[in-house]
Amino acid sequence: MAEPTAPAANRFAAGAAYVDGRFMPVGEAAIPLTDWGYRRSDVTYDVVGVWEGCFFRLDDHIRRFRASMEALHLKPRETDEEIKAILERLVRLSGLRSAYVAMDCLRGVPMPGMPRHPAYARNYIAAFAVPWVSVAGKEMCERGLHLIIADTRRIPPESVEPRVKNFHWGDLTRGQFEALERGADFAVLLDADGNVTEGAGFNVFSITGGTVATPERGALDGVTRLSVMELCEDLGIPCEVRAISAEEFRNADEIFTCTTAGGIMPASRIDGRIMGNDRPGPLSMRLHDAFWAKRAQGWHAAPVDYEKVDEVG
Amino acid sequence: MAEPTAPAANRFAAGAAYVDGRFMPVGEAAIPLTDWGYRRSDVTYDVVGVWEGCFFRLDDHIRRFRASMEALHLKPRETDEEIKAILERLVRLSGLRSAYVAMDCLRGVPMPGMPRHPAYARNYIAAFAVPWVSVAGKEMCERGLHLIIADTRRIPPESVEPRVKNFHWGDLTRGQFEALERGADFAVLLDADGNVTEGAGFNVFSITGGTVATPERGALDGVTRLSVMELCEDLGIPCEVRAISAEEFRNADEIFTCTTAGGIMPASRIDGRIMGNDRPGPLSMRLHDAFWAKRAQGWHAAPVDYEKVDEVG
Repeated sequence: MAEPTAPAANRFAAGAAYVDGRFMPVGEAAIPLTDWGYRRSDVTYDVVGVWEGCFFRLDDHIRRFRASMEALHLKPRETDEEIKAILERLVRLSGLRSAYVAMDCLRGVPMPGMPRHPAYARNYIAAFAVPWVSVAGKEMCERGLHLIIADTRRIPPESVEPRVKNFHWGDLTRGQFEALERGADFAVLLDADGNVTEGAGFNVFSITGGTVATPERGALDGVTRLSVMELCEDLGIPCEVRAISAEEFRNADEIFTCTTAGGIMPASRIDGRIMGNDRPGPLSMRLHDAFWAKRAQGWHAAPVDYEKVDEVG
Repeated sequence: MAEPTAPAANRFAAGAAYVDGRFMPVGEAAIPLTDWGYRRSDVTYDVVGVWEGCFFRLDDHIRRFRASMEALHLKPRETDEEIKAILERLVRLSGLRSAYVAMDCLRGVPMPGMPRHPAYARNYIAAFAVPWVSVAGKEMCERGLHLIIADTRRIPPESVEPRVKNFHWGDLTRGQFEALERGADFAVLLDADGNVTEGAGFNVFSITGGTVATPERGALDGVTRLSVMELCEDLGIPCEVRAISAEEFRNADEIFTCTTAGGIMPASRIDGRIMGNDRPGPLSMRLHDAFWAKRAQGWHAAPVDYEKVDEVG
């Protein structure tokens, strides 16, 4: 028997979710209060965007998600192909043409009679698709982001590996409160050596003398970050992956951030200093425009099949 | 109208929970998949024990919980007195004489129309009481814990303050997998300077030449740890709060751990080295025995009123 497809199933209009085998409206999706995925933040996740009916770099996100799960000894029952099918079904249920699609793998709790150790838990997948929201609004993107360098330091890879996408945002959240107190939009965190890492959900790039640079260590290997590197190569713009000191960052000609939930977002201020003419810089905008132009041409796009009829279950 | 009290209300026998104003069996307690308390681990918590019908140091736990909430800019609607009443009601509903009672304050999500910043969320309380389970079984406690010093380093206070109790357990979980691989029970983590901090949910003490010592920095100000310090003073045992290097820890005469969910738990091995006669050390056992003897005499005990009739709501 077929489920109603998106137009009729308006209870999914605010978003659709999947939790451990079951599909539901996103407002009903919940995880147990006692789950270690919550109580120990013992979970990894990934987020893929859907834009104009197409996933962007879906296979890259699935590959990274699987690598993150393996790094944390998480083994859900779903294969990569099954996860892809779940994500597509979530988008189809919601009917959304632009969506933010998250996938989590939670530890669960140790099975009855087993030791209280994460190795003995049954791990499971949760996922949802909701209307796409940029981390920065249109107005903020046009005037350029106002960034600060936070006093709070990024959690080091020796403790929690940032390349394994995780919800350990305590440092990033502290940074967001620092930004609010200082009248800025977002904070960028340094590592213990005083080099730039990343912000709350975004990678960073600086541009000095026509050369683009992004931190080598202490930050997520972002999929949008990878796309920026590919764009630089296409456009013949030199791009370096290396340590960037706070001083270099503060004195850059231009700065931009990037994320799945926003694409390329140029900054116009850093620690109160105005860059250029207090607007997004020219090289940042060239990359920004090239990014969306290529997206419009179907770059790394995988179309969602909105007409497919799903089995119930 | 009165709710049925514990004996009749067996649907709470496995535990009782409270989530944002509502009481329910613990198995029904869940938090939204999209809540930042989960998705950003933007939450603090505390755990208080009930033993033989009495809370242990309830006011100390409530005081620490409130301090943690303030440090994270979390403002739930419940006062301290209301939180205490909720916890007591959970124990009463469950009917448990010995219970593990957890209280969380979650960020929530930003209110509609507000910026996507944690400052604009409505924070709320979740709590539950379940049957008390020691982090180490009776057998393990009798033979002494087998500990290792993990390669993974503890998240530094410059990133996430360990004295604000949090679910950022990624480093501690990595340590638990290291312990499993090396055939040990639990891992102790070092800070960036190579000094001992804590393990997954427990503080640590070392004993050398009759003097007890516990780390000054990089660990939770544990309530059981405080109790150990008070016991040392009672018994005339010198107790120092200072940095403890990995080398000093590995060469200690005795080591013990302590936690709400287990009390004082002596170790018998560290990194494969046998301490004493491969059994809990004498001074550790003296503290262990004094702890339970004082508990039996009602030390810091606040009796639960199991007969009180709760209003419905």
